[in-house]
Amino acid sequence: MPHIDLPAGIPGIRGPMAFSPETARPLNELANWLLRTNAYHPASTLSEGERELIATYVSSQNDCFFCQTIHGAVASHHLGDEDWSLVQSVKRDYANACVSEKLKALLMVAGSVQQGGRSVTAEQIEAARSEGATDRDIHDTVLIAAAFCMYNRYVDGLGTLAPVNDPDFYRNRAALVVQNGYAAS
Amino acid sequence: MPHIDLPAGIPGIRGPMAFSPETARPLNELANWLLRTNAYHPASTLSEGERELIATYVSSQNDCFFCQTIHGAVASHHLGDEDWSLVQSVKRDYANACVSEKLKALLMVAGSVQQGGRSVTAEQIEAARSEGATDRDIHDTVLIAAAFCMYNRYVDGLGTLAPVNDPDFYRNRAALVVQNGYAAS
Repeated sequence: MPHIDLPAGIPGIRGPMAFSPETARPLNELANWLLRTNAYHPASTLSEGERELIATYVSSQNDCFFCQTIHGAVASHHLGDEDWSLVQSVKRDYANACVSEKLKALLMVAGSVQQGGRSVTAEQIEAARSEGATDRDIHDTVLIAAAFCMYNRYVDGLGTLAPVNDPDFYRNRAALVVQNGYAAS
Repeated sequence: MPHIDLPAGIPGIRGPMAFSPETARPLNELANWLLRTNAYHPASTLSEGERELIATYVSSQNDCFFCQTIHGAVASHHLGDEDWSLVQSVKRDYANACVSEKLKALLMVAGSVQQGGRSVTAEQIEAARSEGATDRDIHDTVLIAAAFCMYNRYVDGLGTLAPVNDPDFYRNRAALVVQNGYAAS
């Protein structure tokens, strides 16, 4: 049961967002910039699918079921990963997943950010840069990882509910997100 | 040295915010709601000073020098804590600090959120409620703690610089924040 009186029947982060629409607005605006719009920034080399993989990996490291499942579904939608096998392999062992060396280096940076900002090393940044990551990619990776340390704690810190054993719920929601972007309602 | 090429001479979070004004907008909007505007929400019993104390405590637990110092200075400004002794005592040992029992209970919730959303217990929530915390207070405490797990990681994950041994820098900046709110420039 959630720790506060949230509107019934709205799973995951959307419950607290309905409780507090004034904070939902910047939370959704931030997600849209980081996961969608910035993918088309002139200095970005990270696709929407790759950005969602970073969000999924960090949410998995934070053990947030709702976030890792919905963002995993959105990543799979973008990447044509119909059986979610690529997403599962990134969560389990990204170093051996079928993603670019650049993304692997950025996932290492994201994993450090998840542990704490001071865990990021100059060597990790240099490794990402040597695989072609730009300043924009590094900035966005750090902020995506940091932001999911927030979203994950917001979802679990309030004890929100999430559908389990219902992959179609996440698949359907992912299709809506890909079409319309992140929004509270 | 910062990990990416940030505008020179802008300390702490304002460097990456100048690099990426599009994400700075929702980040500042969120801070203004949580730390300022929501203090005047009809269902809130948490003052601006108390909200800044929660932000300061979480930033201290995350070992983020810039955030704990600037938000500590803002809290001190609101609370008339001219020598910063109250803020120091909250960071060091809030259970014995000169703050309300309600705020102590909410600081315990915030500390759990800092460790991870799943660390928050029903008993911690009940303890806060029995001291008079409302659903709005609990919501805002969880989101303030979660948000500072993001801001702290953004600041330190990019290796930003911060003035040390210069309390007047933070005092002067705090006075501007109290007057004008959070803004990138």
